[in-house]
Amino acid sequence: MVIHTLIRLITFFPYHGHRTVSRTFFFSVALAFFDGFPDFRFRKAGYQAIDRICDYYYSLQNKPVKSNVKPGYLREALPVAPPTKGESIEDIANDYQDIIMPGLTHWQHPSFFAYYPTASTFEGIIGDLYATTALNPGFNWICSPACTELENVVMDWAAQLFGLSEDFYNTTQVGGGVIQSTASDSALVAIVTARSRYQRLHPDVPIDKLVVYVTTQTHSLGLKAGLILGLPVYAIPVRAEDDYGLRGHGLREVIERDKAEGKHPFVIVGTVGTTSSGAIDNIDEIAEALRDHPDIWLHIDAAWLGAAFSCPQYRARCHLPTINKVADSICINFHKARAGPFSSTSWGLVNFDCSAFWVRDRKNLTEALDITPPFLRSTEGDAGIVVDYRNWGLTLGRRFRSLKVWFVLRSFGVEGFQAYIRKCISLGEIFAESVRNHPELLELVTPPSFSLSVFRIAPGAVPGLPAHELNELNELYYRRLNERNELMLTQTELNGVHCVRFVVGVQRTERIHVEAAFGICLETAKLVTREFTGSRSY
Amino acid sequence: MVIHTLIRLITFFPYHGHRTVSRTFFFSVALAFFDGFPDFRFRKAGYQAIDRICDYYYSLQNKPVKSNVKPGYLREALPVAPPTKGESIEDIANDYQDIIMPGLTHWQHPSFFAYYPTASTFEGIIGDLYATTALNPGFNWICSPACTELENVVMDWAAQLFGLSEDFYNTTQVGGGVIQSTASDSALVAIVTARSRYQRLHPDVPIDKLVVYVTTQTHSLGLKAGLILGLPVYAIPVRAEDDYGLRGHGLREVIERDKAEGKHPFVIVGTVGTTSSGAIDNIDEIAEALRDHPDIWLHIDAAWLGAAFSCPQYRARCHLPTINKVADSICINFHKARAGPFSSTSWGLVNFDCSAFWVRDRKNLTEALDITPPFLRSTEGDAGIVVDYRNWGLTLGRRFRSLKVWFVLRSFGVEGFQAYIRKCISLGEIFAESVRNHPELLELVTPPSFSLSVFRIAPGAVPGLPAHELNELNELYYRRLNERNELMLTQTELNGVHCVRFVVGVQRTERIHVEAAFGICLETAKLVTREFTGSRSY
Repeated sequence: MVIHTLIRLITFFPYHGHRTVSRTFFFSVALAFFDGFPDFRFRKAGYQAIDRICDYYYSLQNKPVKSNVKPGYLREALPVAPPTKGESIEDIANDYQDIIMPGLTHWQHPSFFAYYPTASTFEGIIGDLYATTALNPGFNWICSPACTELENVVMDWAAQLFGLSEDFYNTTQVGGGVIQSTASDSALVAIVTARSRYQRLHPDVPIDKLVVYVTTQTHSLGLKAGLILGLPVYAIPVRAEDDYGLRGHGLREVIERDKAEGKHPFVIVGTVGTTSSGAIDNIDEIAEALRDHPDIWLHIDAAWLGAAFSCPQYRARCHLPTINKVADSICINFHKARAGPFSSTSWGLVNFDCSAFWVRDRKNLTEALDITPPFLRSTEGDAGIVVDYRNWGLTLGRRFRSLKVWFVLRSFGVEGFQAYIRKCISLGEIFAESVRNHPELLELVTPPSFSLSVFRIAPGAVPGLPAHELNELNELYYRRLNERNELMLTQTELNGVHCVRFVVGVQRTERIHVEAAFGICLETAKLVTREFTGSRSY
Repeated sequence: MVIHTLIRLITFFPYHGHRTVSRTFFFSVALAFFDGFPDFRFRKAGYQAIDRICDYYYSLQNKPVKSNVKPGYLREALPVAPPTKGESIEDIANDYQDIIMPGLTHWQHPSFFAYYPTASTFEGIIGDLYATTALNPGFNWICSPACTELENVVMDWAAQLFGLSEDFYNTTQVGGGVIQSTASDSALVAIVTARSRYQRLHPDVPIDKLVVYVTTQTHSLGLKAGLILGLPVYAIPVRAEDDYGLRGHGLREVIERDKAEGKHPFVIVGTVGTTSSGAIDNIDEIAEALRDHPDIWLHIDAAWLGAAFSCPQYRARCHLPTINKVADSICINFHKARAGPFSSTSWGLVNFDCSAFWVRDRKNLTEALDITPPFLRSTEGDAGIVVDYRNWGLTLGRRFRSLKVWFVLRSFGVEGFQAYIRKCISLGEIFAESVRNHPELLELVTPPSFSLSVFRIAPGAVPGLPAHELNELNELYYRRLNERNELMLTQTELNGVHCVRFVVGVQRTERIHVEAAFGICLETAKLVTREFTGSRSY
């Protein structure tokens, strides 16, 4: 025990480096002689957690990406009631390792190409660890100044990283950025804000005449917001020949038709990088169509693809110049974890949850969400010197999320962030190119969108197959791929066509993983085609 | 370097204990010889974070509880743009210590008696650290089985801890529990669910005839939900003589009046432990009044006081037997961090955010929030074997919050949890008793509610003072208390009476801190009274 403590005492020094070692530190080390001391137990459990996290990441690629547990496995493994007496943290941590971990799907696995991967970086973990400790429900400035101010600063850093217009910077004290939990949250806030502005502009319009616009390819966040708010949502159809992006004339027709019927569209969610296929709505044309309807709020959902804005060469293709000119609000997920009924996305290197949300005019937000009576609103609050973030979102209390963003942006730097995004995109291109090289068996269903490819077994693989049977073949294909433990993919459906999605966004994914994954896709396609034609010949 | 690594190698063993040390572990330790290796840098930064967290907690009581920074201090201290090149994690961590920390209000300080303290336990920190690492946006079962199942299990544990009726257990596959982010979130979900049920029962009622009921003492979450949903909220007045709790006849009158005017109340938020004064609405009488109106949803907001349900002796006083019989939904915050315009609350020992939410009938939740088309809803999903938690809340992706609850419930055990709650309540009683012992200067404005006392300078301190001047005196009193760095309190207003709140809920608060705090309150009251009467004699 004594030797052990001395050794630890020596090894501590390098971590404190040249900085002054506090008296409390010596105090707690001295007390570590007494094994029951809680400080010692926590340090032990803390070091162990750090070790296990490292071990986890370094052994990850040797684990199966998917969990093979059966529904209910954990309920069977755990007691029906909490323990009466406290248990040791060692036992709990061991049970986490032995019982909980086998039930995890490894979203950070290098062969995870499903949904949209969630980011989890060491830097983000450390940032979040500090945030969990210094718990400050940052509902207003005074309840913890640093929480509010750091969020204010890093959101301006993020705006610069992504090339957003200065109009969205917090320093303008007109526009501004705030961290929401998820893209669903950001969209809900945008729609509530839009409704509030519309009702102020048109106080006589009954609430049941309002309508929300999305497209048939918009993430489910649109429909969900409609359910929550009790508002009808109209999904404007998009076409395969437009690569599943909304065009201006499509929008114009719908607005005219609805207005003629006495309906009041007040918000449209435009997507840059849809969940299914990475489609980009034609924001230039949408902006043109909205020119005659300045009371319709334009919210840009760039939850996944927005991370690519960090590289200037991709901005024009994503309509960023127009977004900068006309969008009322925009959402880019730093964590990116997105899922639809079939499919989902991660980029941005920050651990879940962290959805960056900007508005062009913060007054619209606070008018919609501030419950402070007007006579109590401070001039500082409105002018942005002291922002009360509770009035910028749905909840009062908030986590100190800006800390993990700060850790990540500083440790990667702008160039490191860009390099990571470019790597993912180039790996995605390798996969797409591999699909293109096997036209006898596979095809891309829609042009690849950055790191995302949507593909299927090509019609040519089984000549003469009717469309619905080709769909059946591709459903079988996905089932077979899904049975493989070496990789994880998701399926999707584009205007009735069944297909498989492949997206790169995990920090640890390298060329070797992508090539191995394509190998499995190709091999499985051969087997499934043979199986399918075999069964049909009976 | 070699020696350092060897030492570390030796010290690692005890943490791995009798468990098999993985090959990757040896691998990474061997690689630690190369200083630039990221694994080593992360371990170093991780150990340092654990050390600093320990140091932080052990030196906390020597720091001032409040931050003294000026608005804008952090923006001045930080660069205007993110760095181009990445920086070392050591530098970032040091900047956190040197620049960010001075801007934090220490909510875990033993002399923090303001708002409602946020819990932050070592066990919760470790649980959250693992959760941050194994990022799984648990939107459905398959995307990470353990996330869904652990939440399912710990919510049943929590229901037992708090003495909730078995109707609310997940095992019933009818009722069930889910973790939301905050009490605002829980209330919003309850109100959306209530509206959806009401509209299914009365499909012809126009949406603009719906009304939400709260009381004038309900937390701002009621008004906020109204803003978000675009629904009118009526705050039923409560009276000082009812200790600011809602009575049955008050509710009955309002329902009859509103129904006569063609309005449709569809939900009432009943509070057990209000933010201002810990008032408890008379749920027994409310249940009686609602008997003729079974289509009005009863949501119980026990965000703060619910933690006291863990001790059986407090349950009857909190109307738990009636809640168990009639409430449609109930919210108890494990983290407890609550704030109103003047005041706020923490109990429950779990780090922010973690709001426990139960419903009596989960079908109402999924009918309201499930965007899966009916023909795609799985029988497993509805029967509760495989719960898709995305349909139980506002957002799709979710943090793995159940892990920290599991760590805390296991390490404290039911008895440890109860002992903590009883300690807070007895410390609160010590404060209340001290106020009672100085009737010449101080008074309790309303009976103390568990660990919360609301007090002020008594009318007798300056005989003959009119009510508005007594309010001025008490405003000055709070300002003076607020200038003290040794403790943190919040003020409130109860039906026009200015008063000060004192709430105990920090794990590290002991009798000595409460006595010291009362000493300051008493001394300041004397000084302020003298100052006030002195200025009036001019």
